[in-house]
Amino acid sequence: MQLARKDLLGIESLSKKEIELILETAKTFQEISTREVKKVPTLRGKTVINLFFEDSTRTRTSFEIAGKRLSADVINISQKGSSVAKGETLLDTAKNIEAMGPDLIVCRHWAAGVPHFLASRLKASIINAGDGAHEHPTQALLDLMTIREAKGKIAGLNVSIVGDISHSRVARSNIHALNKMGARVTVAGPATMIPAEIEKMGVKVSTDLRKGIASADVIMMLRIQRERLTMSPFPTLREYSQLYGLNKEALKGAKPDVVIMHPGPVNRGVEIDPEVADGPYSLILDQVTNGVAIRMAVLYLLSGPKGKAAL
Amino acid sequence: MQLARKDLLGIESLSKKEIELILETAKTFQEISTREVKKVPTLRGKTVINLFFEDSTRTRTSFEIAGKRLSADVINISQKGSSVAKGETLLDTAKNIEAMGPDLIVCRHWAAGVPHFLASRLKASIINAGDGAHEHPTQALLDLMTIREAKGKIAGLNVSIVGDISHSRVARSNIHALNKMGARVTVAGPATMIPAEIEKMGVKVSTDLRKGIASADVIMMLRIQRERLTMSPFPTLREYSQLYGLNKEALKGAKPDVVIMHPGPVNRGVEIDPEVADGPYSLILDQVTNGVAIRMAVLYLLSGPKGKAAL
Amino acid sequence: MQLARKDLLGIESLSKKEIELILETAKTFQEISTREVKKVPTLRGKTVINLFFEDSTRTRTSFEIAGKRLSADVINISQKGSSVAKGETLLDTAKNIEAMGPDLIVCRHWAAGVPHFLASRLKASIINAGDGAHEHPTQALLDLMTIREAKGKIAGLNVSIVGDISHSRVARSNIHALNKMGARVTVAGPATMIPAEIEKMGVKVSTDLRKGIASADVIMMLRIQRERLTMSPFPTLREYSQLYGLNKEALKGAKPDVVIMHPGPVNRGVEIDPEVADGPYSLILDQVTNGVAIRMAVLYLLSGPKGKAAL
Repeated sequence: MQLARKDLLGIESLSKKEIELILETAKTFQEISTREVKKVPTLRGKTVINLFFEDSTRTRTSFEIAGKRLSADVINISQKGSSVAKGETLLDTAKNIEAMGPDLIVCRHWAAGVPHFLASRLKASIINAGDGAHEHPTQALLDLMTIREAKGKIAGLNVSIVGDISHSRVARSNIHALNKMGARVTVAGPATMIPAEIEKMGVKVSTDLRKGIASADVIMMLRIQRERLTMSPFPTLREYSQLYGLNKEALKGAKPDVVIMHPGPVNRGVEIDPEVADGPYSLILDQVTNGVAIRMAVLYLLSGPKGKAAL
Repeated sequence: MQLARKDLLGIESLSKKEIELILETAKTFQEISTREVKKVPTLRGKTVINLFFEDSTRTRTSFEIAGKRLSADVINISQKGSSVAKGETLLDTAKNIEAMGPDLIVCRHWAAGVPHFLASRLKASIINAGDGAHEHPTQALLDLMTIREAKGKIAGLNVSIVGDISHSRVARSNIHALNKMGARVTVAGPATMIPAEIEKMGVKVSTDLRKGIASADVIMMLRIQRERLTMSPFPTLREYSQLYGLNKEALKGAKPDVVIMHPGPVNRGVEIDPEVADGPYSLILDQVTNGVAIRMAVLYLLSGPKGKAAL
Repeated sequence: MQLARKDLLGIESLSKKEIELILETAKTFQEISTREVKKVPTLRGKTVINLFFEDSTRTRTSFEIAGKRLSADVINISQKGSSVAKGETLLDTAKNIEAMGPDLIVCRHWAAGVPHFLASRLKASIINAGDGAHEHPTQALLDLMTIREAKGKIAGLNVSIVGDISHSRVARSNIHALNKMGARVTVAGPATMIPAEIEKMGVKVSTDLRKGIASADVIMMLRIQRERLTMSPFPTLREYSQLYGLNKEALKGAKPDVVIMHPGPVNRGVEIDPEVADGPYSLILDQVTNGVAIRMAVLYLLSGPKGKAAL
């Protein structure tokens, strides 16, 4: 099997077969992180650049650990120390980095489309580690892996995504991923946080939390970004939390074997109650663990001779 | 021999036998840093996270070099790039990091007790790299190693610690360490900088610099933190320096073979005069060199199967 | 062949033979970065410290990649996280770092002379990665390498350096380098940006862009630092650009086979037009690629037993 593409920019453009390949590869890599010696020579002599224009300890660390466990050389570049401050264009920054011969560039940017822009202009493989409100493909892939581990399958499941759908790249990537894998997606949240015509993406919509999660096998809570809330028509964190926060009370109407996910970082007491986040049905930390395996798989599958990354 | 514990949180809870084990192990590692090839495969495939909530170039660099010379994968996380800014709790940050499978977490935090809090909740080994005014165990261990190198022994020596004892984790860890190893400790400094009832820790107290160091075999000067001084009843840096700064004049009453130590960074001309800091009795740079060996020893001794780290 | 010196502080003190040695060594290393496995064990077990007191993503990354491709352990220290903020002297910071046993310290500083100051006081090898307006030797070396690749030779070529000569360490290092290698150098720029008596360095001077580049085989454009411009007698960026910016129009009077270089980061539309920066005669990205090879060579040649780094 091969991943016949140069870049991983989003879930939208992946086929189901490609998603399956990544999930299968991640499964074989998962065991490495449980060994006494957590390291294989697979990517020895490969250069991975973490190019982050937006802070993200968790995603950067996950990619850095993934790269190092595969023996790659990992170099971190963050916006603050970058030439952006000196007036250089994004493309010049990227072309300069590419001229140093990296094999893979992991790019996080606050603006949607930046990884695509770079991918079309650079020879290095680009991995989208989150671009604006657009996509965050490795997050959706680790979510799929986590669901499959917990439920034994993805197809046929009901998955509810709750929160600020409009601004969420996690929601967008997951909707594409779950649709492709045959799950049924419901999005739930205040009307002001749900994009118009999102039904066209093949999802059901609910503005009521309890109805939105009533038949869910999986609930994905999204992080509320406090800074965005103040600019929205939504009055206060407190009111949001009362209507859309997931607590034990709200969970009463859900299926007894429902599982709860969250991409982190968690706002305890806002979108999710501590007793839910830490409850037995919570998969939040499994998501983080699987994130390393997914990123190892993606780095590996994109690091081969372009178009020939054999499994 | 074994170090039958998961974490290194402070000197207070270590036995003399454990301290001896760490010092002996450090001695065997010391030679590695003098080789042409400063690297052994001991921790190959282990993941070490430097989790620093407070800036410290020297301690972070020392642990990073120690880890890399043992072939571990070392990942740096500093507060600024961390999820703390996004409102995540400390425990969530730590649990997320743990979910990525690190073997060791080196934690520096401005609040006392944080490493203990994490140690009791995480499966990974925690090394306290300084917590508030509480403990800084690897500093005390490298100080013991340096004293033994210079004096051939620790038991029976008179050690004077001079400066702001109240706010110093270095003083606290060293008092525990020196007591356990059989040295006699005197603390000296302005009364406002010496905790009430510190005699209960088994030390003598002097508010006079010359009397405090008269019989010392070892003088440990503490760094004066300028920002703290302004909030203290103590009038000015200048006045502090005149009364408690270690200069050649003040050293006249000391033993001829006294040695001088300082944990760094040094405020030249404040707590210590340049001619003293750079004098032949100064062990300041030996402390730094030994720091790498001590951290290699601690990383090694805590990296084995828990409770079974055989020497 | 040997590089019988401890440090690389500037081009001024290098002999032509030493420059040739570095260029030849870089040529042999260049191929490594094009392999599937971009890594050789040459510097395994060596510790390289990137000590940057001034931001520079590109130079830091280039040295980090160079070190890692040679299997060295690379540790980054930037000013912000450093003890400088705590009032430690520069020499104390450096001596502390040296006490941890690095083999090589790559130093960038905003003040001219800092690398020389450190080199005379430390046993570790110091590589100047740019000091104030003084020197940036690895930049000049990579420029020589790039010119020789493009033109087959250096001796006898006419090279024009255009821009703010007064404040440019790149210009200074290149004037020394090109003189030693037998090229003829012309500097061009507004009179206020050209140092008095620069002719004594063996260069011609022109305050007219077109005349300055008329006979050039190579044009090196310098970056205009916006913050400096506002303090200069020069009125505006726009006016500077009209008189000294390199565009297609200005290039009409140049030789048909002229090549264009720029140390980056580029201010597009200020000192150089996009169509020139991206044109077929532009060597800007080759410079970046060669930078990694030059830094590999320098790290290698200085890492041996001092004075005995055999080729």
